[in-house]
Amino acid sequence: MKKIIVYWITLGILLVVHSLKAQNKIVVFQSDFGLKDGAVSAMKGVANTVSTDLKLYDLTHEIPAYNIWEAAFRLEQTVPYWPEGTVFVSVVDPGVGTSRKSVVLKTRKGHFIVTPDNGTLTLVAASEGIAEVREIDEAVNRRKGSGQSYTFHGRDVYAYTAARLAAGTITFGQVGPVLPAQVVTLPYQQATLQGKVLKGNIPILDIQYGNVWTNIDASLLEQLHPKYGDILEVTFYHQHKKIATLKAPYSETFGAVPEGKPLAYLNSLMQLSFALNMASLAETYHIGSGSEWSVEVILDRFK
Amino acid sequence: MKKIIVYWITLGILLVVHSLKAQNKIVVFQSDFGLKDGAVSAMKGVANTVSTDLKLYDLTHEIPAYNIWEAAFRLEQTVPYWPEGTVFVSVVDPGVGTSRKSVVLKTRKGHFIVTPDNGTLTLVAASEGIAEVREIDEAVNRRKGSGQSYTFHGRDVYAYTAARLAAGTITFGQVGPVLPAQVVTLPYQQATLQGKVLKGNIPILDIQYGNVWTNIDASLLEQLHPKYGDILEVTFYHQHKKIATLKAPYSETFGAVPEGKPLAYLNSLMQLSFALNMASLAETYHIGSGSEWSVEVILDRFK
Amino acid sequence: MKKIIVYWITLGILLVVHSLKAQNKIVVFQSDFGLKDGAVSAMKGVANTVSTDLKLYDLTHEIPAYNIWEAAFRLEQTVPYWPEGTVFVSVVDPGVGTSRKSVVLKTRKGHFIVTPDNGTLTLVAASEGIAEVREIDEAVNRRKGSGQSYTFHGRDVYAYTAARLAAGTITFGQVGPVLPAQVVTLPYQQATLQGKVLKGNIPILDIQYGNVWTNIDASLLEQLHPKYGDILEVTFYHQHKKIATLKAPYSETFGAVPEGKPLAYLNSLMQLSFALNMASLAETYHIGSGSEWSVEVILDRFK
Repeated sequence: MKKIIVYWITLGILLVVHSLKAQNKIVVFQSDFGLKDGAVSAMKGVANTVSTDLKLYDLTHEIPAYNIWEAAFRLEQTVPYWPEGTVFVSVVDPGVGTSRKSVVLKTRKGHFIVTPDNGTLTLVAASEGIAEVREIDEAVNRRKGSGQSYTFHGRDVYAYTAARLAAGTITFGQVGPVLPAQVVTLPYQQATLQGKVLKGNIPILDIQYGNVWTNIDASLLEQLHPKYGDILEVTFYHQHKKIATLKAPYSETFGAVPEGKPLAYLNSLMQLSFALNMASLAETYHIGSGSEWSVEVILDRFK
Repeated sequence: MKKIIVYWITLGILLVVHSLKAQNKIVVFQSDFGLKDGAVSAMKGVANTVSTDLKLYDLTHEIPAYNIWEAAFRLEQTVPYWPEGTVFVSVVDPGVGTSRKSVVLKTRKGHFIVTPDNGTLTLVAASEGIAEVREIDEAVNRRKGSGQSYTFHGRDVYAYTAARLAAGTITFGQVGPVLPAQVVTLPYQQATLQGKVLKGNIPILDIQYGNVWTNIDASLLEQLHPKYGDILEVTFYHQHKKIATLKAPYSETFGAVPEGKPLAYLNSLMQLSFALNMASLAETYHIGSGSEWSVEVILDRFK
Repeated sequence: MKKIIVYWITLGILLVVHSLKAQNKIVVFQSDFGLKDGAVSAMKGVANTVSTDLKLYDLTHEIPAYNIWEAAFRLEQTVPYWPEGTVFVSVVDPGVGTSRKSVVLKTRKGHFIVTPDNGTLTLVAASEGIAEVREIDEAVNRRKGSGQSYTFHGRDVYAYTAARLAAGTITFGQVGPVLPAQVVTLPYQQATLQGKVLKGNIPILDIQYGNVWTNIDASLLEQLHPKYGDILEVTFYHQHKKIATLKAPYSETFGAVPEGKPLAYLNSLMQLSFALNMASLAETYHIGSGSEWSVEVILDRFK
């Protein structure tokens, strides 16, 4: 008899513990709303109305207004560091109310991204792979009583659907119908090695410090076998017009060069980047980022 | 016997689950502190000292310094999207240390707002209704050891009391004595329809995009039976002086007009608003917001 | 038999409840990363990969780039308000990749701070006392697969180690080897009373309001027995050069002086501070903060 009791108690405890841990219940929000008004908070309120057991975090809400490219980049940069099963909401939506589809992408790594399919998924779909894309069925997955308002899908559709998915209220299948396994993509220059010349895009600036990042991976760079201390000559272009040329030693740390001097390094995403130690390269040389910015890089010893 | 065991186990499990869910344990913070110093974090630390089971969120901390009107507006805009039982803390308190009362408003929708009673409650009290107002009894509801400091009530009284209320450490009745069911209110222009002319206030700008919001509800607008595509003529006033006049089609989506062109639309609060598609109306025409800003709107076909 | 059942059930429930409460599982993040990119979110993602039961909060991420002094001040200002056992991560790290040590300080109050030992611990070590300092053993406490990247220790070492410590994955002892009970400190002017003259440093501005804070404690000030209404004459110095002199009544509240007029008061840290009621003293008189800023204060009646 005692054995049965212990069995039942153990089972009961396991069920309780399991019910608390079955999903990670995490939603991460990104938008171009800024933090000055109540929009982000309203999205989190709606998510809490679905379930108060969710854990709600932010990626950033300081995406420049309507800048789909930057939204795409921030997702690619950040999604991989979150656990499998995390649900992301990204709302940079200049076409709100037009015909762009509202979708949920499940990546091959097991992350979910809830967003308008307007290019936002360009980079994360490429880096994590597409497991499945579903269109949000707004007949089901739309906040009750929100049918009259046409301008805040972030709150009424995206946050609401993400919360339901993360909380286990709906399965991924219940999001809505399956779409072809593809997403809307923005054009951008791929990183290439042509002869001895590396070409690539400047997807983003590390704006807090003014560092210039490229999409040239460590693995591509390594085909040139650079050693720390080797000098890289980098030329920055805007719409194919030369903006600046610099010589920068390939460095393991910022401290390897004097204050104010340029260096080349691998950033935290293991991509070739350029900086001034303790100063802003982007400001000093007027470098920007986006699809129209590019670099050419050559090792000095190959010249 | 086995039935009894199962009964007790079920009861036990239910009790545990219930104890974890009895209250939503959510506190949402708003202030004019900004995010550059440690003030917001100190408030959340104090709340965690009351109970680490609380879930702490933010409305915004970017209310312009001392701007009670904007604090009032952000509450009205956001509170309704949070679940019943959520406790809000709003600290925009130019009169800290003076005779303004520290209160907790319970709205008829079941939200709690902990704040100095200085006008902050003007709009949410009107929209959600007053269930009860209590004055915070600082003899009980004040952080231990904080009696000597007179300048950070947000941390020592408001965050502390909100956390105790949200955690169930105190009941609403234990906040302090009941006050008359009224709050301090700021004057503002009501939305009205006078003949064929709509008049209203500009309570706030949608600052991230430069859109101009009014307090004219969809229901008031609909008395004029506007159809999408109808032209609205809007005149913006500052202290009764005309600032600008625009003609804007009443539109279901921003995409209904070309880039840079004006439109009239219902915002996410279902209030008449004005914008330029992909540009800032407020910047372009120097429109502001607050109690001294107003609009007059007329349908072109009535002229 | 029934007693045994009740005993086991009670024990089971207690074990479940205890397992949920054994540690406070709180991590608080500070950095100079800003909130515009994905860096803070990546740190929180890594922490969630360690355990989704953690509660992740922010101190601030708006520390001016490379400003170790301000990071030190924000910690001292905020850490005491969080419960014992809270783990802080502070990443202001101009020397990333150089020889500065990565450490965890356990204070005598039971707080943990995970940070590069570059001066960040100067003030909190002095105010809370040093219980023990351990160097992070990166052979164990470094995110798997991050070995190739040299530039984001905040994510790969500090956030990861803090999450493991807060979640109970490792004990404090498992952080790494014990170091001597001392930290790297920045020089700063101590508060002193010389005859009738108070001297002190301006560690920080209350930037949102433009108030000027000093490191002169209430207890030191009280040796002059000031009464509310007494006039203090304060002179502000930058690198020993006089910047401004003001006469300000010692006041219990900001409302004690007319709008725009100066006052002296005790701030929320119980330190002598100076302000203009409803205006910015720092902007009006061009006062800054940091190690090179100081004040001299004298009671008018002693002149």
